[in-house]
Amino acid sequence: MQPLGTVDTSFLLAESREMPMHTGGLMLFSYPPGADEDWLHRTFSENDDPDAVQYPFNQKVIWPLRRFGLPHWVTDRDLDTHYHVRHSALPKPGRYREMFALVSRLHSTRLHRDRPLWEAHVIEGVEDNRFALYMKTHHSMIDGVGAMRMLRACLSSDPNQRDMPAPWNTPRPRHLSNGGPNLREVGAATAGAMEGVLKFANAVRHRDKHGMIAPFQTPFTMLNGRVTGSRRFVAQSWSLARIKMVAKALDATVNDIVLAMSGGALRRYLIDQDALPEQPLTAMTPVSFRPADADVEGNSFSILFATLATDIGDPLQRLRAIQNSMGEAKRLLRSMNSADIPIFTTVVALPVLLPHLLNISGRTRPTFNVTVSNVPGPQEQLYWNGAPLEGMYPLSIVTHGQALNITVTSCGESLDFGIIACRRSVPHAQRLIDHLDASLIELERCIEVG
Amino acid sequence: MQPLGTVDTSFLLAESREMPMHTGGLMLFSYPPGADEDWLHRTFSENDDPDAVQYPFNQKVIWPLRRFGLPHWVTDRDLDTHYHVRHSALPKPGRYREMFALVSRLHSTRLHRDRPLWEAHVIEGVEDNRFALYMKTHHSMIDGVGAMRMLRACLSSDPNQRDMPAPWNTPRPRHLSNGGPNLREVGAATAGAMEGVLKFANAVRHRDKHGMIAPFQTPFTMLNGRVTGSRRFVAQSWSLARIKMVAKALDATVNDIVLAMSGGALRRYLIDQDALPEQPLTAMTPVSFRPADADVEGNSFSILFATLATDIGDPLQRLRAIQNSMGEAKRLLRSMNSADIPIFTTVVALPVLLPHLLNISGRTRPTFNVTVSNVPGPQEQLYWNGAPLEGMYPLSIVTHGQALNITVTSCGESLDFGIIACRRSVPHAQRLIDHLDASLIELERCIEVG
Repeated sequence: MQPLGTVDTSFLLAESREMPMHTGGLMLFSYPPGADEDWLHRTFSENDDPDAVQYPFNQKVIWPLRRFGLPHWVTDRDLDTHYHVRHSALPKPGRYREMFALVSRLHSTRLHRDRPLWEAHVIEGVEDNRFALYMKTHHSMIDGVGAMRMLRACLSSDPNQRDMPAPWNTPRPRHLSNGGPNLREVGAATAGAMEGVLKFANAVRHRDKHGMIAPFQTPFTMLNGRVTGSRRFVAQSWSLARIKMVAKALDATVNDIVLAMSGGALRRYLIDQDALPEQPLTAMTPVSFRPADADVEGNSFSILFATLATDIGDPLQRLRAIQNSMGEAKRLLRSMNSADIPIFTTVVALPVLLPHLLNISGRTRPTFNVTVSNVPGPQEQLYWNGAPLEGMYPLSIVTHGQALNITVTSCGESLDFGIIACRRSVPHAQRLIDHLDASLIELERCIEVG
Repeated sequence: MQPLGTVDTSFLLAESREMPMHTGGLMLFSYPPGADEDWLHRTFSENDDPDAVQYPFNQKVIWPLRRFGLPHWVTDRDLDTHYHVRHSALPKPGRYREMFALVSRLHSTRLHRDRPLWEAHVIEGVEDNRFALYMKTHHSMIDGVGAMRMLRACLSSDPNQRDMPAPWNTPRPRHLSNGGPNLREVGAATAGAMEGVLKFANAVRHRDKHGMIAPFQTPFTMLNGRVTGSRRFVAQSWSLARIKMVAKALDATVNDIVLAMSGGALRRYLIDQDALPEQPLTAMTPVSFRPADADVEGNSFSILFATLATDIGDPLQRLRAIQNSMGEAKRLLRSMNSADIPIFTTVVALPVLLPHLLNISGRTRPTFNVTVSNVPGPQEQLYWNGAPLEGMYPLSIVTHGQALNITVTSCGESLDFGIIACRRSVPHAQRLIDHLDASLIELERCIEVG
């Protein structure tokens, strides 16, 4: 029996029908050469032994003192693999459109608390001789970066490798999530972290509108009200080489370009909806960076707030404003020691979590407007039992106050965007795909002009 | 704006993740002769105009004073047909097994309260050139008999009829449900109904164990604990001629045979699970009958409790005990006037509903052990746009305290059994199908012996 961390517990407490707290991943594969019709079913059937299910997929949450005590992980002795692993098929013609419709629905339903908090959906009937695996795991069990590592661990760069277990049967380190320190650790916050918080507060006080961004300094938009429980998922891949080329030519990082594409797409979308606010939208974005005291290997994760500069029509000026705001936030983070980062992150994340726990999110001024997250993925071509991985699209969380989430991951030679939105608050979310593409083309034109 | 009745409101109040309060129907069709590959998609696409959606499918629930006021139906001006009507496909080979797995999952998720309380799932890829339509409607919107009437209204006995709308686009009378009288009407309960209640109480006091059955006089079994939110659905058709022949030969009604098959199947199932109680199981069963003052046309509905005589090994003696218990209950109902029946039903149903509203169901002695419901269906072969209806399987509700529900309907020349169960409380629910068949064969052997 292992207690959950503070942040992990808050994901359970904040969860409701309208805001399920699971993340997902959609992996698209081609069939291996020479696979017969029964290959998919047979390969997954070899993975249905409940005793083969690995940690954390065999863990469920219990509350020893009901809602009053703290929740704990325990091993589920009664695991039912056929409940967790489900076979589905797309209606014809099995295009991306049908796949997104199915995955949107699968991502809209909550995981049941009386079982381990995951589901896997094997999807057949995808056009061009492909199949898909959609996996859904509760955020209290594993976070986006952890899920990516986990999926990476069950794939191979060798196209000839066979007898590879499914993700839930792949052994991995006994570490459920990076859900942050527990309450005792937060209490023991070091001077370093508090100094960081003070520096942050000070920088915020003297900021201009595209400088250091803090929670709550953001307009209320159509993306920031109460959400319903049904989701719309859309996804698209862009060539990583193409985005790297734009980044290099414009003296920016790939992440800057991801934010600039997102800012540009949101500006176009909100203009279409006649709902663009005068003030720029802000994004919350998780970052990976090297802290002041790090050795060569060490990297830390935190979250920061950046402008999306949606008030600026010129794409290059918009990119510069985003870079400026990201630069200030990163400088602050880099000035801290690695031991202080988790405490700092917890303190800064509190304004994000508290409104959910108090159930006032979506009714007050938003903490920020949209999450844009860039999770590093595999760089080489990967295979599962000889089936080439063709795409890996993240599906994150939508909450009251945050009806849209853009999460991006690299997968081999492409950058895969996964967009999840409340079906009611964000009508025609599929148009964001075209707007992202238009914003990338706009940035490419800046190079030609330059 | 129209207020919901007392019973309809209680279905909304009692609903939780573990006990969704919707019923469903699975209709199995063959493709019409000469239909091309795109026929299914095209035919349903002609039904996606939100303005064509008919009452009650265009109604949603609002609580004008939030949870303190009474709920009301209002027309949804923002109806999104693509949300309600969903296309799915079975994984190969598309047998009943794959169909039941999909429909079990679809029946496990709750309807969203911010939209009209229904979903329709068009399912392709059923083997033998078939397709299916699974419809899910909230019990507060329409009950089982109402749903059956509604489905009947959108079908035709003419195989050549075309341009037939989908169920949600078929006009019908402005009557949402038979959800019982409202609170004021209950208050004005007539002397007749109270006399019925007193007679009922009196008969119960002097009963033997297979006589008049009242709520709470029943053993606690594995079917009567708390349930989880996930469901297992199985279904099967039996020849109506075969069952009528058994009924006639054994001087019983078709409904008696349905109860005897259910009692026999449950006895076998519980023996397998080493969980057969000494006392007989009791069933709650809705009935249609002619009250004392009825004219030729008039029929009333109520509920009654009957023994399933699971303590009796001999199939013929079991049937006789069931008939005896049904006879006593029906005699009481027939002695009442039609105006008293709804009041009587509400009073008798209170012990069934109250434990759910108090959230103690599944923790106390059960009101009864299992619901066995026989809903009259169409007697002739029906078609939808030329597609012959091959089966119509009801999916009812599972609650805390009632982990299993058997609902039966006639469909042309067959009797279609739909069994819905909590996936965890009722393991291997699919075995009930074999047990039902074995119990029918047992009764057939009684004729030969006689």
